[in-house]
Amino acid sequence: MKRLGKQTVKMQNNVYITNTSSVVGKKEGEGPLSQYFDYILEDEYWGEKTFEKTESKMLHDAIIRVLQKDQKTSDDINYILAGDLLNQCVSSSYAIRSTNIPFLGLYGACSTMTESMSIGAMLVDGEFANNVLAVTSSHFCSAERQFRFPLELGSQRPHSAQWTVTGSGAAILSNTGNGPKITHVTTGKIVDMAIKDANNMGAAMAGAAADTIYTHFSDTGRNVDYYDMIVTGDLGYIGLDLTNEILKRKGVNIEKKYTDCGILMFDKDTQDTHAGGSGCGCCATVFASYLYEKLRNKEINKLLLLATGALMSTTTIQQGESILGVAHAVAIEN
Amino acid sequence: MKRLGKQTVKMQNNVYITNTSSVVGKKEGEGPLSQYFDYILEDEYWGEKTFEKTESKMLHDAIIRVLQKDQKTSDDINYILAGDLLNQCVSSSYAIRSTNIPFLGLYGACSTMTESMSIGAMLVDGEFANNVLAVTSSHFCSAERQFRFPLELGSQRPHSAQWTVTGSGAAILSNTGNGPKITHVTTGKIVDMAIKDANNMGAAMAGAAADTIYTHFSDTGRNVDYYDMIVTGDLGYIGLDLTNEILKRKGVNIEKKYTDCGILMFDKDTQDTHAGGSGCGCCATVFASYLYEKLRNKEINKLLLLATGALMSTTTIQQGESILGVAHAVAIEN
Repeated sequence: MKRLGKQTVKMQNNVYITNTSSVVGKKEGEGPLSQYFDYILEDEYWGEKTFEKTESKMLHDAIIRVLQKDQKTSDDINYILAGDLLNQCVSSSYAIRSTNIPFLGLYGACSTMTESMSIGAMLVDGEFANNVLAVTSSHFCSAERQFRFPLELGSQRPHSAQWTVTGSGAAILSNTGNGPKITHVTTGKIVDMAIKDANNMGAAMAGAAADTIYTHFSDTGRNVDYYDMIVTGDLGYIGLDLTNEILKRKGVNIEKKYTDCGILMFDKDTQDTHAGGSGCGCCATVFASYLYEKLRNKEINKLLLLATGALMSTTTIQQGESILGVAHAVAIEN
Repeated sequence: MKRLGKQTVKMQNNVYITNTSSVVGKKEGEGPLSQYFDYILEDEYWGEKTFEKTESKMLHDAIIRVLQKDQKTSDDINYILAGDLLNQCVSSSYAIRSTNIPFLGLYGACSTMTESMSIGAMLVDGEFANNVLAVTSSHFCSAERQFRFPLELGSQRPHSAQWTVTGSGAAILSNTGNGPKITHVTTGKIVDMAIKDANNMGAAMAGAAADTIYTHFSDTGRNVDYYDMIVTGDLGYIGLDLTNEILKRKGVNIEKKYTDCGILMFDKDTQDTHAGGSGCGCCATVFASYLYEKLRNKEINKLLLLATGALMSTTTIQQGESILGVAHAVAIEN
């Protein structure tokens, strides 16, 4: 049995992240991580007629790019694990239609990237797959009109609101090759912070992030000193502060090692993104570009990555439900 | 390596389905499978204020029931694998909120039940989990208003339309205990039949069902004679006929062993459900009641079960996309 404690499993075999790819929107390409992305869109449509088709095209492009970079074909991939924020996860399914790869669809909201890497790592480690492809996406314009308001309305956004990242990130996990390895997977439970404000997702997800980090440490016996970086997916400034605060109250201080993909993605002073980036594409593209390169260059060797998801829909918000949080952690090590 | 052919893996260890539970709506409780269900709702609300909350309550109830029947607590369950048809899969996440079980959310439309059993079986077989819980749901009223028209409009349904099953089915997969075992998992690829009519889902999914059945046979070397029953999830009458036709053209005749949960669920002559039942809850509740009892009683000993999903959203239909199909097979054997 590979279980460590309540929520963590330890890989027994090598699960290499052999390659990644990232495709992002224009605004993301103007941010601090610009140099790390594989492709930057020139506008929000990329030649498509709708934002949904653009999002799906980005996800498809991320798949094709990572296959090319890893010198693999779709025949080499045993499973594709994908999901996104659009209703019925259509960005993923239409992107994957032409790939001819067995498809396991996931929904973890913005936690989907590490959910896909978690399940993917277990399928490789368990000898069910030689290679799996994990991919997810989001698009500012498709998310805004689905979850909030039509862009044409020009609604003012409160300062607790986050900016959905336009982008798609992909990773190939393999039992051969080289690259940093996924060594541990800590699967999150749902944590309800009783937040009902859909413009304050960071707060809604902070409890889940803190819970999964705390549990990862207690399951593995590791602590903050073990890691070079601990990075959450899209908590932004408010969620990061809350996560630090919750963990400190439990006697754990991760501040010196901890940052968030939603903070890394945009320049706070010049890009007007309020509480930071968010969306399934946030953790996916920041990991698949900047963080993966740092691991490859051995600038960092031990990374704890947690994508963070806010589980809700416009219907549940209208019906007075709170926004639920979930966070899945993968330990990635050289 | 446990792989057989392109899309199939064979379990090396015992993956027992130790128990199941089923909760269905009033109409389903008046159908031919009435005696097999654990609980039948008296009306479509079950004391809740909205159909979405009712659906979530059914899914929660199916979880609690299967834990009780299997004499387990939530602490015994390492992962819960769940998904549903509602936007952002909220039926699952709100139902699971209070369970305190690590949660992997899935989206495979109506293929979700066998997707959850597939991943669950691999997690148990791969020694990542002792026990997993697979569960999914659908509700006629929440699905109609989300995907088609408000019920109050009294829209007439074409005869190719299917009736979304109100119900939730759950199963516990375990490495100990007893019960029929999941022996093989064949994961489906997306198949596009170029169907654009959201009232003809059976046709949209038939290609995927046929593809997965054909691939399962070629991957495993088995044929129709091996199985006592081959059962798809919610193809209904039109999809079943098409699946038979597609397979016959490929030289495979499964007619004598083959039926569909959407056909089993309702009485065609008296229940006015047109092309048959559908929805994530269709395969889940028919398997978790009638089929599981047949396996337990050894009336059947070898079952090939394929839930079938139509991947689409109202947005993609409005944007002129076709409805994609996917089907995941699990071989269940005494």
